[in-house]
Amino acid sequence: MITSSQRQLLRAISRSGPLSRTEMAQALGLSKAAMSGLARDLIQLGILREADTIYGQGRPSIRLDLHPDCAFFVGVSLLQDPAPMILGNLNGEIIARAEIPLSRDPAVIADAISEALPTLLSAHPVAAEKLAGIGVALSGFVDETRKNCVQSTLLNWQDVPLADLVRDKTGIETFLENDAKAVAVDEKLFGSAREIQNFSVVSLGDGIGCAHFIDGRLYRGNHGGAGEIAHCTIEPGGAPCRCGKRGCLDTVASMKAIKEMSRAEGFECVSLAEIENQASSGNTAAIRILHRAGSALGLAIANLIQMNDPGLILITHVEGSFDGLFGTVVNQAIETNVLPRYAGQTPIRIRRVDGDIWARGAASIAAHHFILGPNP
Amino acid sequence: MITSSQRQLLRAISRSGPLSRTEMAQALGLSKAAMSGLARDLIQLGILREADTIYGQGRPSIRLDLHPDCAFFVGVSLLQDPAPMILGNLNGEIIARAEIPLSRDPAVIADAISEALPTLLSAHPVAAEKLAGIGVALSGFVDETRKNCVQSTLLNWQDVPLADLVRDKTGIETFLENDAKAVAVDEKLFGSAREIQNFSVVSLGDGIGCAHFIDGRLYRGNHGGAGEIAHCTIEPGGAPCRCGKRGCLDTVASMKAIKEMSRAEGFECVSLAEIENQASSGNTAAIRILHRAGSALGLAIANLIQMNDPGLILITHVEGSFDGLFGTVVNQAIETNVLPRYAGQTPIRIRRVDGDIWARGAASIAAHHFILGPNP
Repeated sequence: MITSSQRQLLRAISRSGPLSRTEMAQALGLSKAAMSGLARDLIQLGILREADTIYGQGRPSIRLDLHPDCAFFVGVSLLQDPAPMILGNLNGEIIARAEIPLSRDPAVIADAISEALPTLLSAHPVAAEKLAGIGVALSGFVDETRKNCVQSTLLNWQDVPLADLVRDKTGIETFLENDAKAVAVDEKLFGSAREIQNFSVVSLGDGIGCAHFIDGRLYRGNHGGAGEIAHCTIEPGGAPCRCGKRGCLDTVASMKAIKEMSRAEGFECVSLAEIENQASSGNTAAIRILHRAGSALGLAIANLIQMNDPGLILITHVEGSFDGLFGTVVNQAIETNVLPRYAGQTPIRIRRVDGDIWARGAASIAAHHFILGPNP
Repeated sequence: MITSSQRQLLRAISRSGPLSRTEMAQALGLSKAAMSGLARDLIQLGILREADTIYGQGRPSIRLDLHPDCAFFVGVSLLQDPAPMILGNLNGEIIARAEIPLSRDPAVIADAISEALPTLLSAHPVAAEKLAGIGVALSGFVDETRKNCVQSTLLNWQDVPLADLVRDKTGIETFLENDAKAVAVDEKLFGSAREIQNFSVVSLGDGIGCAHFIDGRLYRGNHGGAGEIAHCTIEPGGAPCRCGKRGCLDTVASMKAIKEMSRAEGFECVSLAEIENQASSGNTAAIRILHRAGSALGLAIANLIQMNDPGLILITHVEGSFDGLFGTVVNQAIETNVLPRYAGQTPIRIRRVDGDIWARGAASIAAHHFILGPNP
């Protein structure tokens, strides 16, 4: 059983990244002696470990971090078929993989997860013993309990209590999360944003996702809708969107939109790489499409910078590349539409991701809950 | 001297509004007995008081709130000439007023504040004794220490350490804040947003300001730039803005922009009320101007809702009214540009404010610092 002070310490590390004992004492308002005792207990429990040593002014200081083997988590992505399922540790490392067939029937998914679990864990008895949670990432809205999928167009779901179905089948506490939010949590706990308090992830795929960390915490908004930049109107009066309104970012800049615009211009077998090729050999239709898409995405990101002034924007994409015209136009449009005194001050990091990203994000959601505890 | 647990309690109340002892115990992870002791001490010190009684299931519960007379604050607004200066208590009430001449010379302002202080306090010996801070609100950027004005176009300042100048003259700890952020803090501590964790203020005047509270805290962004919606591009390729780019919200929807567009259309003595009058009697130029301005502001607010999903948007305005065409178009444009499943779910509150708003906001900044303490 973790005490309330120990929990505070885990939360502080999850917000700030590895911390020295002195930094921990400051964060919790405790004396150095009290903090040393607390840290010693958590090291003995196998929850913390000494991570690295920082050399600066005065004595070198040892930073403490979460111990990767103190708990294990399963992550399932419902964004692909078959649905990837991974076993991860508290370092965000994948230690085993499985797959289940994707279904739109929640009961079938819960059964499939439950059936795949023993195989996933079979070679990892320690993980099986210390399995602390299951996370499921999906495209759609998740309510604030992270138990119910309020709506998913992709899965055709409305108010589906998937987390409880999975827990009932597996006996393991389960949490749901929206895909972009799961990726943001993964970045914060284990990725490049560990020591960044305010950042946004923009995930570019068939749809466009976005999630914010603010003051070191995932910010979900009042109805779980924070980060819905896909439905910011970017071309007023523009093309109709499946959401019911017009000119949403999603209708111009998503991979799906780029492909549809390309098909409408007569391109046959379409991929971002192919459109980029056409553009670089001077095809004006291809250039126009990539310009329109890139300008729209850049403008939306610039507006996000104006509104929230994040310390980092991480753009993840699963196909194509940001080396071509599209990426250039995105970067130019950000630059052009940001208040000149801030232009170039917000780091934009672009990362091509593999198909593990959502399953790993899903496992991070379970890890996040393990660290934050019941009343974050 | 306030202990660290007492400080935690004050912070919890500043985030959530009045709390029962049971709610406080939950918020701080303390036993009810420990919490009762803590609350008793703070009541004896005159910092907390019993505010109201909530009747619900079970026993009625008494909620505790900050005691209005436990500390007093001075607020100065550098947005008007003469600059209003008020004395306020920890309930956000104004108990005395003065004015100083506005100057662009920081040393002159510091002198004027120092000279006006004895008069402001003369009839209030208790406030003089318990004066805990001075706040100064200005139009511009303030750094995260809240001591330096990084840039103010209105005052023609660049890196002005005004807070230290005022403190050196008066001996009282002083904090600066951007005008919209000061208003948001006032709303959170003393106004209609006390029990709301996530909200944004949009202040409409000659310029457009905006500030966010997220998870009960003022969110300043990574460079103090959060809330700069005035410079979101809303008409790509549109009119040049004083910031150096084109088509900013400020160039279309600020009172200054509405007046300039009206003058360009040949209206002589312009005020929002007059343009509204012209529009309601069918003048097409007036209708066009108000439509353009209202659509732009509504679109920017809709984008803010899409990005941050706040629990409340409070629009403050100092002149004209929101009853006419402008207000109608703003509301329609918000409705049209928000994801249909969220349309109408974000309360939009509109408030006409008096000239005290920034001075009161400035005093709230000092009160906020008093409550949060040195390491918020």
